[in-house]
Amino acid sequence: MTRKASAEACANIALIKYWGKRDAERHLPCNGSISLALADLRTVTTVAIDPSLTADTLALDGHPASAAELGRLGKVLRPLRERAGETACVRVESVNYFPTAAGLASSAAGFAALALAAAAAYDLTLDEPELSRLARIGSGSACRSVPGGWAEWHAGTDPAGLDSFATRLAPPDHWDLRVMVGLVATGPKAVGSGAGMAGTVATSPFYAGWLQGVAEDLPVARAAILARDFDTLGEAAERSCLRMHGSMLGAVPPLLYWQPATIAVMQAVWQWRQEGLPCFFTIDAGPNVKVFCPAAVAADVERRMKFIPGVTGVRASGPGQGVALSKAHLF
Amino acid sequence: MTRKASAEACANIALIKYWGKRDAERHLPCNGSISLALADLRTVTTVAIDPSLTADTLALDGHPASAAELGRLGKVLRPLRERAGETACVRVESVNYFPTAAGLASSAAGFAALALAAAAAYDLTLDEPELSRLARIGSGSACRSVPGGWAEWHAGTDPAGLDSFATRLAPPDHWDLRVMVGLVATGPKAVGSGAGMAGTVATSPFYAGWLQGVAEDLPVARAAILARDFDTLGEAAERSCLRMHGSMLGAVPPLLYWQPATIAVMQAVWQWRQEGLPCFFTIDAGPNVKVFCPAAVAADVERRMKFIPGVTGVRASGPGQGVALSKAHLF
Repeated sequence: MTRKASAEACANIALIKYWGKRDAERHLPCNGSISLALADLRTVTTVAIDPSLTADTLALDGHPASAAELGRLGKVLRPLRERAGETACVRVESVNYFPTAAGLASSAAGFAALALAAAAAYDLTLDEPELSRLARIGSGSACRSVPGGWAEWHAGTDPAGLDSFATRLAPPDHWDLRVMVGLVATGPKAVGSGAGMAGTVATSPFYAGWLQGVAEDLPVARAAILARDFDTLGEAAERSCLRMHGSMLGAVPPLLYWQPATIAVMQAVWQWRQEGLPCFFTIDAGPNVKVFCPAAVAADVERRMKFIPGVTGVRASGPGQGVALSKAHLF
Repeated sequence: MTRKASAEACANIALIKYWGKRDAERHLPCNGSISLALADLRTVTTVAIDPSLTADTLALDGHPASAAELGRLGKVLRPLRERAGETACVRVESVNYFPTAAGLASSAAGFAALALAAAAAYDLTLDEPELSRLARIGSGSACRSVPGGWAEWHAGTDPAGLDSFATRLAPPDHWDLRVMVGLVATGPKAVGSGAGMAGTVATSPFYAGWLQGVAEDLPVARAAILARDFDTLGEAAERSCLRMHGSMLGAVPPLLYWQPATIAVMQAVWQWRQEGLPCFFTIDAGPNVKVFCPAAVAADVERRMKFIPGVTGVRASGPGQGVALSKAHLF
């Protein structure tokens, strides 16, 4: 007989960006970050403990996972197995309800859901910081999908990462902003964000300046979210985004995740704002542009984005919840 | 009777970029730079001393100059008048043989030609460092158009700028590279390079890193030019370009000179190089992309560039000479 659990988590979009690790194995960041979870970019993950298996299995959107992905799965399962005193293998399936590997941080939702589903399958009860740290071991930004809503990942200083997890700044319904994810290209990235961070930290003369800027922007963004100050949050978010991408341009070899349409969306957002439409953008380690706006103008922003040459689609989302158990299993 | 002289100068494209002034009035740079003059992007300037005038006049491409442009003219003429003991006003006309104010550094060629033509009209003989410093007073990068060919602008440390001028690294025929200027947009810039530099120096946390990078790249580029080492020069030039633009992205407000087609050309160049075509790019404070390549593949590069969506034209050029007197007057 197998024990089985499923969990659902949302992707999250960083407003103050995470860029650079002080410990690549544990995904310990050099800087703190602040994010919003997105209700409509969800992952469901089911974990079943199956003593008949001779190795863990992992299927992502119905396809068998790579050896690297299985390795990350093992890193998350290991502490749970130790704690539960279990050795049996697991079958894991995960389904993303949005395009994967295109700067949309599907791994964040996936590892947050995995952490909770696996803990539940092993019949372990972890508190939120424990779950957040566990998700972080799979994918750094996944720790922010655990509390969901408006969340802050505290960089921490502990070499083992005990103080490096995310907490909730405000619940999803604190501020009904909408995020329009402008899809520019959905193919796999040329350089993964892990390698991109490592290259930036090791070779970009801008990295010290990046850290200095984040330290200034974190309290600004935190206060702006709590005060629902759209303009201040937007300025801080665009600053953080452009500095992250600027720091990459300084690396050897340089990192440029943008496509022509990425520039087109950025310029359009600046133009719309001049015209009085409240909106701001952020861009992760990929070509897609995420545009934030108040719910009242979301339809207008979405319509305008679809007219930009090179934008192949727009996915709208509101603020999302933290990770939660699901009664609907994938298998 | 009027005394009249004309001079011709080439624009120049920096391979190691000039970005940031330590003295805005004297155009004294924070960092040294290295450039190539472009034979086919020329300016001809005629200066006539005319005692009947009550004020200096300046026509640029047949249009009366703005008050700001007249102010810059006056700054260049002042030291010559003092030295010549003259007070008479001048009539100046300047014609650019390339699109102006689109990141193509028309002011560099213009002020180099002005410095020589005005000196000659006042019957003064200035040596090359004197001419280079004089041109610099009009427009910083103009000092590099005085020696022409492969030139280096020494940042200098003198508060009065006596050691801040350009010298020739190698004559134009040292290395027959071609430059393809890919025109993306020829309208005036949103933020002039002077304001862009000031904003970057004052607000970008990347500026210290920028200076550190240039200090490393200057000797690399200098040696690569002397050794005709295309790959090393290309790497250094792209690194300098991307770091200049990266430093701007860190400014408050951020500076983004790129258009969608700017990205398209950069990506095309990287793709062509992977295919074995030797080429590299650089981009100034504007959207145009300049692609460098050996003369043997210039036609191929030019043809490919014209096919890139958003590229409205390509201007090809070889290495250009320094400023020289011209017998053909504009009036």
